[in-house]
Order: sequence, then structure tokens, then C-alpha cells
Amino acid sequence: MAKTPEEHPVKAFGWAARDSSGVLSPFRFSRRENGDDDVTVKILYCGVCHSDLHAVKNEWGLTNYPIVPGHEIVGIVTKVGKQVQKFKVDDKVGVGVLVGSCKSCESCQQDLENYCPQMVFTYNSIDHDGTKTYGGYSDVIVIHQHFVLRFPDNLPSDAGAPLLCAGITVYSPMKYYGMTEPGKHLGVAGLGGLGHVAVKFGKAFGLKVTVISGSPSKEVEAINRLGADSFLVTSDPTKMKAAIGTMDFIIDTISAVHPLLPLLSLLKLNGRLVTVGLPDKPLELPIFPLVLGRRLIGGSDFGGIKETQEMLDFCAKNNITADIELIKIDEINTAMERLAKSDVRYRFVIDVGNSLSHP
Amino acid sequence: MAKTPEEHPVKAFGWAARDSSGVLSPFRFSRRENGDDDVTVKILYCGVCHSDLHAVKNEWGLTNYPIVPGHEIVGIVTKVGKQVQKFKVDDKVGVGVLVGSCKSCESCQQDLENYCPQMVFTYNSIDHDGTKTYGGYSDVIVIHQHFVLRFPDNLPSDAGAPLLCAGITVYSPMKYYGMTEPGKHLGVAGLGGLGHVAVKFGKAFGLKVTVISGSPSKEVEAINRLGADSFLVTSDPTKMKAAIGTMDFIIDTISAVHPLLPLLSLLKLNGRLVTVGLPDKPLELPIFPLVLGRRLIGGSDFGGIKETQEMLDFCAKNNITADIELIKIDEINTAMERLAKSDVRYRFVIDVGNSLSHP
Repeated sequence: MAKTPEEHPVKAFGWAARDSSGVLSPFRFSRRENGDDDVTVKILYCGVCHSDLHAVKNEWGLTNYPIVPGHEIVGIVTKVGKQVQKFKVDDKVGVGVLVGSCKSCESCQQDLENYCPQMVFTYNSIDHDGTKTYGGYSDVIVIHQHFVLRFPDNLPSDAGAPLLCAGITVYSPMKYYGMTEPGKHLGVAGLGGLGHVAVKFGKAFGLKVTVISGSPSKEVEAINRLGADSFLVTSDPTKMKAAIGTMDFIIDTISAVHPLLPLLSLLKLNGRLVTVGLPDKPLELPIFPLVLGRRLIGGSDFGGIKETQEMLDFCAKNNITADIELIKIDEINTAMERLAKSDVRYRFVIDVGNSLSHP
Repeated sequence: MAKTPEEHPVKAFGWAARDSSGVLSPFRFSRRENGDDDVTVKILYCGVCHSDLHAVKNEWGLTNYPIVPGHEIVGIVTKVGKQVQKFKVDDKVGVGVLVGSCKSCESCQQDLENYCPQMVFTYNSIDHDGTKTYGGYSDVIVIHQHFVLRFPDNLPSDAGAPLLCAGITVYSPMKYYGMTEPGKHLGVAGLGGLGHVAVKFGKAFGLKVTVISGSPSKEVEAINRLGADSFLVTSDPTKMKAAIGTMDFIIDTISAVHPLLPLLSLLKLNGRLVTVGLPDKPLELPIFPLVLGRRLIGGSDFGGIKETQEMLDFCAKNNITADIELIKIDEINTAMERLAKSDVRYRFVIDVGNSLSHP
């Protein structure tokens, strides 16, 4: 059982959901004392991930209330433990989806803490000391140094925050599944928080990028604002037919249940579709397009700490950030309602530093 | 439209199905004259593939009767055209699933004629001259030299014949999906014509091989006869649970609709499942095991000519053949009935040379 949060010495303040209504409201809690290997971070910005919405409403059935969401955190170091070499006070840092792992299993040894069976999520998880973790919709967080990322100086803290989950979640599979060869043709299915960053990575890798979407209204911004090369509306059978067999890769960011056959048909021989959305029901898998085109469907969750750092550095070098709508903490419930309707271009980020203060 | 077979000058005799009863009976037809690039082969043996059964009963809805099945052909060259350098009279040769392709598309240029959009199948296909192709349940075949395989002298002609389809269909994906690293753990799901050869390839590649089957009765022969290291019965929940996360690869040869979740659960992080069966309905694809373990599901059909030759040479070097039941041509209808019930260890091969003669 988790200890009660009151046992910790560091006072913290955030916004929490108390039940499956998902409504967030002010919440006093506490963080552990900064240990020898810990870093204390004053939180400045926190992205609003679609997972946060699932979690506050308990849509995956795993929520332990009260819950303070948020795992796209950017802030400033205010304290470091005596074993901490990598960071010092006043450093700009990031915290993503993970704050703990076993550090000894096969996954951890390969820098894939994100697949460690004992990983500790940034919120709604039980930490190694038996206490509950609370996320970044709050003023302060204390984390083991291993899970703290250097946040490059030239990367904007607000628009860079979503890279810590949305960014790495598409960057990691693009690297792992070899979707980085210049000149190849990438389809990005779904143009939300993940999809819009995938477009930017695709262009940075030198790919031809086509956005595949059910919303014709997104065409102009996909091309003019995000830099996609072309746009394919799934509801246009003529254009879908013309696009059959033209893509090398598809990154499928659609989180709702959807048919795979039209997407698989767009792939060339040896084409690869990677799914990073998490539909809550199984999809229908047609076997013939896999067998007859030697195509594959792969999965991937977010990414390990080492690769997340690599991704942040890549973004800094290539001027990649998320397109965001900056909100104050007291706008979070409205933002969640809009997010549920995909009404955001393309990620809400909470201006924690300027809008959250102890009452 | 296909021309009538009577237009060809070379007399041929085989067994054909005339309707969707699938019953085979003697059939007189003809083959084209041996052209400059052609090789004429006197057929000695022909394997009975599960596709033959699907085709004679029109289970895929693509059959054009009469149909002479058979695409696991071993025979002796009796004539070569003047452009033929690779083969001479009396050479032992093989013919597999393909007898034609466009030779100019991207697939053909990569020696992947098996993915050429204009490929010509060995039977039930329209050849480039507009006539229908007839397969290996017959005494003679005329083929373009490109699609003829050298059949190694030390490879038995009867037990080697099934390698031309069953063999290459598992060999090719094992190579493409990297299932050849010694010491890795391969699961072979389904122990039929394809599966039993996959076990042998797995051992030849130095893998640990576990047969995954619904039939506990197959355990002894899987281990003692085929050389598998272990056997996992899918109906035993305790053993299935104990095997979770233990396999690097699975080659799934099951051709019936079946659940993927139990198989995916057996895979480690980064595990790969390759499906080579062709269930006639979509399978159910659970997304979480893909995403949370970075697993992939890939497809593959048979293989190109170059790789089929490589596979035959590999089998000759490693003494790999199929385990067969040799039958006479007039036993074919009984064999088909038994095949429909998976009652064969593990491939029927027709002794064409000794049982088929012009009436």
C-alpha cells in the first residue's frame, strides 16, 4: 500500500482530480526530502498529454485518486543531492514519463528503462519508497538524477515541454524501425499532439511526409504550418486509391479504434506501420496485406532516458518544438474538455510558473 | 482471356480438378514448345501443398477450372533452348511457386519476383503468352530458365521437393526478419508442412526451438524426430504462463483464424512474430502487447528465385529435407482428404515418375 503523502517533508501544491469526473482542483500534498541522488525542480511548464485525460477520468481503469497528472515537465533545479554530478542549481531541466526503474534488468541495461517491468511513472504510480507519485501539474518535484534530462538552452521551455512525451513517443520508433532514411516517404496518420511532431521529425530526417487524416480542414495547416509535403484525406476514395503502395513507412498516432487495411494498403513492399496510439480495444488485422507485401506492424511506447536526451538535443539542433496553446492552471478543466474533442493546435501547455502559487 | 490448352504442341498429361468438389482425375492437356530461353522438365516428384487443397476446392475464390495443381516440382531436364546457359539435358532441377514475373519492376530488380505485381504462378495463372498455367501433378513442364532451380545432387528428390514452397516460405522470413542469430529462442506455432521445416531451419541456424501447438500428441515427435528443444501446449495455461516473455521470435504457420494475444505474450522485448499462414478472415490485433514490448508482427510470402536457390543449397549443406509420405498419383484424392484433417507427417509427395503415365 502507498503511504499517505503527508509523510513527506517537502510541501507541494498542485491540481488534482479526486474522482472519475476528472475535474481538477487545487490540492496540497508533499514531496520526499531531496536525497543524495535526487534533484529538486521548480516546475515552470507542463504539457497536457492525452494520457493525462485518460488517467483523470480513469478510462484505463488504473487510476488511484487523488491524481496529479503531468509528465511533460520543464523547470529549474533548486537543489541537488551530494551524489549529483550532472546537474547544479539553476540548470534548466526536463522530466518526462518516468521517474524510476529497477536499473538492473535487461531493459534497463540497454537504456530502455521505458520497458522495465518495475518502472515508476511520473504520476499515478508507486515509487520505490512505497509512496505515490504525483505529476507536473504542481509547483515542485523531487526526482532521482538518472531520470532528469538536460533541457537545451535554446529550446523554448514552453513549446519544448511536450517533446518529453509526445516528442520521444514518435522519435523513438522512427529511429528503431529505421524511418530515418532521407528521401523515403512517411505517412503520418492522425494530426494531434504526436502526429504534428512526427511531421517535424520526418522533415528533419529528410523524408517526404504525407499527413493522413480524416479531417480535410487540416490540409492547409499541415502543409503551410507544419511543413508536410502532402495531405491525404481518408474519406476520399479516389485519392486513397491513387496513393496505394506509395509509402515506405506510416506512423499511426490514432488513439481511437480504426481500420488498418486502408493504411496498410498505402505501404510499398517491405513497408512498415508503427502504431503508437493505444486504442482501448483490439484492431482488426488483415493478414493478406502483410504476407503479400512483406509488410510489418510494430509497436513502441515512449523511450528510454538516454534516447530522450538525444531527442531533446536533436530538437535543439533542428529547431523542433511542439505547436502549443499556453494556458493558466485555472483553465485546465476547459482545456481537458477541448482536448477530449481534439480541439487544440496541437498541445496545451500549462504556464505553471506564472499561474500556480500556494493559496 | 486464356487461350485453350489445345493450342500448344507439347503433349502433357496430369490430374486435374474440374469443379469445386476438388476431386482430381486424369487430364490431357498441352505445354508450349520449348522456346530459346525455356527448359523442358520431365517431372519426377511433386509435393502436395496446402495451397493446392485451397485451390482445387476454390476456397480463395480464384480458381479457373480445370486446374492441375502442384508447385513443389523436382525433375530432370529433357530439353533446353539455345539461349539457356545455366542448364543442360539430364540436370536435376526444381520448380517452385513461380514461373514468370515482369523482370523489370522494383521487386524483380531486387530478386523479389515473388512480390512482382505481374508474377505468374506455376498453376491457375495466366502466362505471358495468354495461356493458362498448369502445375506439377503432371508429367512434363516447360518453363523460362530464370524460374528453374538447380537441385543439389545430394538432396533427395522426393523429400527435397517440399522445400520449393514449404521450405522457402519459412526460410525467407527467418532471414529477412533476422531470426538467424545463434542462441536466440524461436517459437514455431503450428507443426504442419511449414512448421516442421521451420524447426529444422531453426536448429540449423543454431536457435533454441520451441514448438507451440494445440496437439499434446505431437510432443514426442517434435522433440525426438524433428529435433525441437521443447514443446509448449497452448491449452496448458500453467505452462503458457511460465513461458511468457521467453521467446525472441515466433514463426506462426497456423492457417486457421487464431488468437494472437497468447503468442505475442510469449515474446520478449523487441520480439518478432512472423505470420506465414493465410487465414481467410482478419485476426484480432491487441495493441498493448505491441506497444508495451516494442514487438512487431510481420508478414512474408514465399521467396524470390535467388533466395530459393540459396535455400536449396543451404538444405543440401545441412541435410535438411521435409518429412514426407510418398504417394502414387491415384492416391491423391485420399491424400487431399487426409490433408484437410492435418493427417499427414508432414507432407505428401507424389511419386509422379513412377505412377503417372499416359493412358
